[in-house]
Amino acid sequence: MFGLPLRALRSVSHYSTVAPKQLFPTKTIKSLLADNQPKDTEVLLRGWVRSVRKQKQVCFAMVNDGSTLKGIQAILNEDDAKNLSVAFRLSTGACVELKGLLSDSPGQEQAKELQVDAVRVLGECDNSYPLQKKRHSLEFMRNLGHLRARANTGSAVLRVRHAASEGLHQFFASQEFILTNTPILTSGDCEGGGEVFKVTPGSATPSTQDEFFKKPVYLTVSGQLHAEIMASAFSRVYTFGPVFRAEESVTSRHLAEFWMLEAEMSFIDQIDQLLDVTEASIQHTTRHVLDTCAEDLAFFNQWTDKTLLDRLHKSIEKPFARMTYTEAIDVLQRVQDKEKRFEFPTVWGSSLQSEHERYLASEYCGRPVFVTDYPANLKPFYMRTNNDGKTVGCFDLLIPGVGELVGGSMREERLDVLTQKMELAGMNVEEYGWYLDLRKYGSAPHGGYGIGFERLLLWLTGLENVREVVPVPRWVGHCKY
Amino acid sequence: MFGLPLRALRSVSHYSTVAPKQLFPTKTIKSLLADNQPKDTEVLLRGWVRSVRKQKQVCFAMVNDGSTLKGIQAILNEDDAKNLSVAFRLSTGACVELKGLLSDSPGQEQAKELQVDAVRVLGECDNSYPLQKKRHSLEFMRNLGHLRARANTGSAVLRVRHAASEGLHQFFASQEFILTNTPILTSGDCEGGGEVFKVTPGSATPSTQDEFFKKPVYLTVSGQLHAEIMASAFSRVYTFGPVFRAEESVTSRHLAEFWMLEAEMSFIDQIDQLLDVTEASIQHTTRHVLDTCAEDLAFFNQWTDKTLLDRLHKSIEKPFARMTYTEAIDVLQRVQDKEKRFEFPTVWGSSLQSEHERYLASEYCGRPVFVTDYPANLKPFYMRTNNDGKTVGCFDLLIPGVGELVGGSMREERLDVLTQKMELAGMNVEEYGWYLDLRKYGSAPHGGYGIGFERLLLWLTGLENVREVVPVPRWVGHCKY
Repeated sequence: MFGLPLRALRSVSHYSTVAPKQLFPTKTIKSLLADNQPKDTEVLLRGWVRSVRKQKQVCFAMVNDGSTLKGIQAILNEDDAKNLSVAFRLSTGACVELKGLLSDSPGQEQAKELQVDAVRVLGECDNSYPLQKKRHSLEFMRNLGHLRARANTGSAVLRVRHAASEGLHQFFASQEFILTNTPILTSGDCEGGGEVFKVTPGSATPSTQDEFFKKPVYLTVSGQLHAEIMASAFSRVYTFGPVFRAEESVTSRHLAEFWMLEAEMSFIDQIDQLLDVTEASIQHTTRHVLDTCAEDLAFFNQWTDKTLLDRLHKSIEKPFARMTYTEAIDVLQRVQDKEKRFEFPTVWGSSLQSEHERYLASEYCGRPVFVTDYPANLKPFYMRTNNDGKTVGCFDLLIPGVGELVGGSMREERLDVLTQKMELAGMNVEEYGWYLDLRKYGSAPHGGYGIGFERLLLWLTGLENVREVVPVPRWVGHCKY
Repeated sequence: MFGLPLRALRSVSHYSTVAPKQLFPTKTIKSLLADNQPKDTEVLLRGWVRSVRKQKQVCFAMVNDGSTLKGIQAILNEDDAKNLSVAFRLSTGACVELKGLLSDSPGQEQAKELQVDAVRVLGECDNSYPLQKKRHSLEFMRNLGHLRARANTGSAVLRVRHAASEGLHQFFASQEFILTNTPILTSGDCEGGGEVFKVTPGSATPSTQDEFFKKPVYLTVSGQLHAEIMASAFSRVYTFGPVFRAEESVTSRHLAEFWMLEAEMSFIDQIDQLLDVTEASIQHTTRHVLDTCAEDLAFFNQWTDKTLLDRLHKSIEKPFARMTYTEAIDVLQRVQDKEKRFEFPTVWGSSLQSEHERYLASEYCGRPVFVTDYPANLKPFYMRTNNDGKTVGCFDLLIPGVGELVGGSMREERLDVLTQKMELAGMNVEEYGWYLDLRKYGSAPHGGYGIGFERLLLWLTGLENVREVVPVPRWVGHCKY
């Protein structure tokens, strides 16, 4: 009985179940292009016209269905009068069904082309269509949120998002983590400070707003504390879902709603084990995206960031750098003494600012770097106090060009130490009785980390603004639809 | 270049990427039990004591790490004085590390047992631990939300949840769907009626609450409209995430926060294609859970619902039943004429009530049944009007014992018909300009459906209350932690 589930979990292709048959009558363009079909196979395809070039005797239409970046070039000849009359209705944006022969293309731009026998316009597209065949700015496209996935950047980034999500699930399955869904609605607000969103029934008045749940309720800023509940039962768990911050500053790194991958694991007792898992999860996901989104990454490498592919390949070839906060401060202080380049202080005990993080990742290390063991007073109550009494077992992963991509820590598993830290932080210890119970009843050494999914996507695409990597982004002043 | 991505997508084990190496030094109990190890292998395991039986010369401890239902029986002998002194600290709930020889068990209860050489108590557990070795009621456990995953039902249901989630992702990958994340924060509230939650910054006052987004913002009740944006670019998409309803009634079927799988696909134009995909996604997920959670399902079959395994196996062996609303009304009317058993009307044009749905699924069909083509005036504006002008191309999937598990429809893709329907429904057409644009610019025939994930889990476990199948449930009056 045990054989099946285990094999299912342990190998990466952990799906023991029989493959479902193909249910759709038309293949995607991705499938058509990849199939090693015999020459001149008759195929049926459906998609949207990206561009049309009409010549006297022939009409070329690039057709895309979202499965690949480039699509397929369809060729409609004058000979077929029926086609020609349709060709006039073929315009950029139109939705079409084409039947024809797929053959190797003599052109440079595409591997295959479709000699069309029959065409059906499923949905016309008039001249007011805002996406024409030219490069539009990212800002222009952001204001056309409901159409931007029909253009190259907008579709490439969401295919990468899909692949990155798949790569993460795949990694955690391979390490026998259980996927859990921590709640979005929460009555705890210890991490959010003032920047939380409050949730009330739409029909409530100011005086009845807390009646629904009998207490004030907020949108979660992190699933960590809830994930710790699950790690104390399943050993290794992860949660992957939206988190929220009522962040008022408008920057290229902040959204009101974004996704976090949070992993929590019992029975690790060294920060280095945590770094090993973090590094492997990022590297595996990077590798998976390189493997499955080669065309999209080549596009970003050409148009967005010419160092992208080189940078990604290097990042999976060797381990990330590792240094303690204390070592980092040493490095920064030496640079500061010599060059006076930093605006903010570089003395032990002060926070690392963006300028410091940028220097460490982009210049000093030239690759992703883990900075570990920060001073306790810079970090939240739940991080485990090191033996030196003044630092905690935690880390930030700093990435060239992106900044902080991951944060994690060993969690304080000692009941007495944790209680003391909570009291010191001025928390209502009674309200966190459930959290202390996890230490009171069979406490396990444990730790975890959280990956900002949108920041990971910046790293994987070379894009600079998180608003580009979310299907429908929300930030201060912006909640369209 | 295209070869890799395609192979990656088309086969069910769609992961072309190299498997990450095993990063954890200890195997889970699931792995240990499944490995075909040579006899008497020395192993290390970590977990929590579920029960202890102390005899004069020997101490038996059932140890569980959440990876399986049963765990491993550890045997500590008196001979080892060190062990015995520890044994006194071994109590239910304690967290332990054990080293010893794994061998076949002579006992009936477990396949293997561990002859312990060395034991380390990582976290003690005192007598106040509320989970002792006996059956606790589901209500009792629900009030111990932070500990219930340490008991059999609580852990089994979350392993099934993990497997069902995996099965769904696997199914949609096999059919070349792109995973997209539709937003949680939304400024549209057309589907929620009065039962939406409103979101405001925690620091806002009644007069400033709508300033953050410059408009009122709500928690989503469905990602469908946003998923339609993505289907108009990627052909086939799905989204899987939390949705919210400020539902005030306390029933075993309603939560304030629950998960929905919503799929949306372009280029289908028959309701039957939609039913085919829906059926295949449910059947595949059921099959995957049967394959990977055999032990957990056997547990539920024994303790929760003795018809479970039989029912699940039957449901994947043959297609679900299909009937139109009109046929369903015929059936119900005939029964009503004969038996007068229904409280609510059974005339054409009236809603199907729970009593009707229960009769159709549990008695008349005795298996899952799709009811299709409801009267237009019972359904929302976006459903596609059938040629008869009075019904719409939609369906509910009714499941014995659970009720409505899935709802879906063809979407109205004709710009003029849709505009008219929105005006009829009294909607602000201008505000939905973006939605109409999807019809104006290259409209494709399309449809989609949504699976209530918690209801699917009721179906898969035989449990009766949705609060049992969520890691941390939220409903009216309840938002602990």
